Amino acid sequence: MAEVKLHGFWPSPFVHRVIWALKIKGVDYEYIEEGIPNNKSEQLLKYNPVYKKVPVLVHGGKPIAESLIILEYIDETWPENPLLPTDPYERAMARFWNQYVVDKGFPVFLELLYSTPGEAQEKAAKEFLEVLKTVEEKALGDKKFFGGDTINFLDISYGLMAYWFKTMEEVIGVEVLEPKSLPRLSQWAENFLQVPVIKENIPDHDKLFAYIIAIRKKKLGA
Amino acid sequence: MAEVKLHGFWPSPFVHRVIWALKIKGVDYEYIEEGIPNNKSEQLLKYNPVYKKVPVLVHGGKPIAESLIILEYIDETWPENPLLPTDPYERAMARFWNQYVVDKGFPVFLELLYSTPGEAQEKAAKEFLEVLKTVEEKALGDKKFFGGDTINFLDISYGLMAYWFKTMEEVIGVEVLEPKSLPRLSQWAENFLQVPVIKENIPDHDKLFAYIIAIRKKKLGA
Repeated sequence: MAEVKLHGFWPSPFVHRVIWALKIKGVDYEYIEEGIPNNKSEQLLKYNPVYKKVPVLVHGGKPIAESLIILEYIDETWPENPLLPTDPYERAMARFWNQYVVDKGFPVFLELLYSTPGEAQEKAAKEFLEVLKTVEEKALGDKKFFGGDTINFLDISYGLMAYWFKTMEEVIGVEVLEPKSLPRLSQWAENFLQVPVIKENIPDHDKLFAYIIAIRKKKLGA
Repeated sequence: MAEVKLHGFWPSPFVHRVIWALKIKGVDYEYIEEGIPNNKSEQLLKYNPVYKKVPVLVHGGKPIAESLIILEYIDETWPENPLLPTDPYERAMARFWNQYVVDKGFPVFLELLYSTPGEAQEKAAKEFLEVLKTVEEKALGDKKFFGGDTINFLDISYGLMAYWFKTMEEVIGVEVLEPKSLPRLSQWAENFLQVPVIKENIPDHDKLFAYIIAIRKKKLGA
């Protein structure tokens, strides 16, 4: 049995957070692709009976669910190339800004994902822009990455914005994360996608584009 | 200027999490009572411009918001009497179960708080019971505290259930956390309230009872 296994699903941005962290740490792992939503393995259901979702990291037979909790576990278990800063105050700030986007951004992200042109979509886009402006101004500032010169926990957590969200924007025909409104965050997204470990470990654009169209069709019945 | 300051509000269960943690660690602090919701100090608005909420911990002039993030900061800054386990896997489990109640329990808690007798209230009570049953079975088990023989991060995070939620149950006339349905979790609540640092640092029952009636009245206009 491999020491480290990851149960994933290719388009899941939460799974990619874990893949990036494992690659940054240089941890070898076995990847198990799950059939989401209707063909999950018995192992996944056993390992994550509460949420029945990916990602699940299994280390020495012990399962851990929820991508952000897995990131902290990885950082504590393999301390080389730290993801969180070492200073407690900086760690608190990383956790704060992460939580801010989980609380304020993620619900709006989901609204946008399943939106069609109209007032509700415009409102969601405006709300998401406000969240991203706050992040750009208060958390990113003039840094290249949230982690400074190299990517860290916050870059990994926000990373889905640089590819998943950008592809979704193409699908719905709305652009929130663009250089005019968000010059520094747009530059961050470009910088982020240039990092080898990221560039080499994101889904194919066209395949993801088709996947997003498919889940919208399923949800919206259109 | 005191080295550690805490901006709080007497009935806030989130503020009490921080008070308990500081007391467990033996950290001296200055407490600043805020006028919530309409008479917040300029300092609070400056320290927590994003949420404008308590608790805010200020350490050496640097502010930290959000009770659970403050708990991790306190644990990392003052390592004596640890709140989180030292083993990375056990830390991940504590974070997982904490997150579970934040995600699944807290929205239902709020529904119950502002509920009136009827179908919606019954449904919310049933949902909350399911969440607590899961916590009792999978996270507490046969232990005295979530932390084992002594209270830890999870006990502190869940602690509001032992007094705030119990008082709210009296106000709305619904009992979810009671020995017949949740024998071990009810025993935990009793054990928890016997811990000196907790017993000495929770709001007066009658004052909290009156406060909960008042916020319900304000929200429900009744």
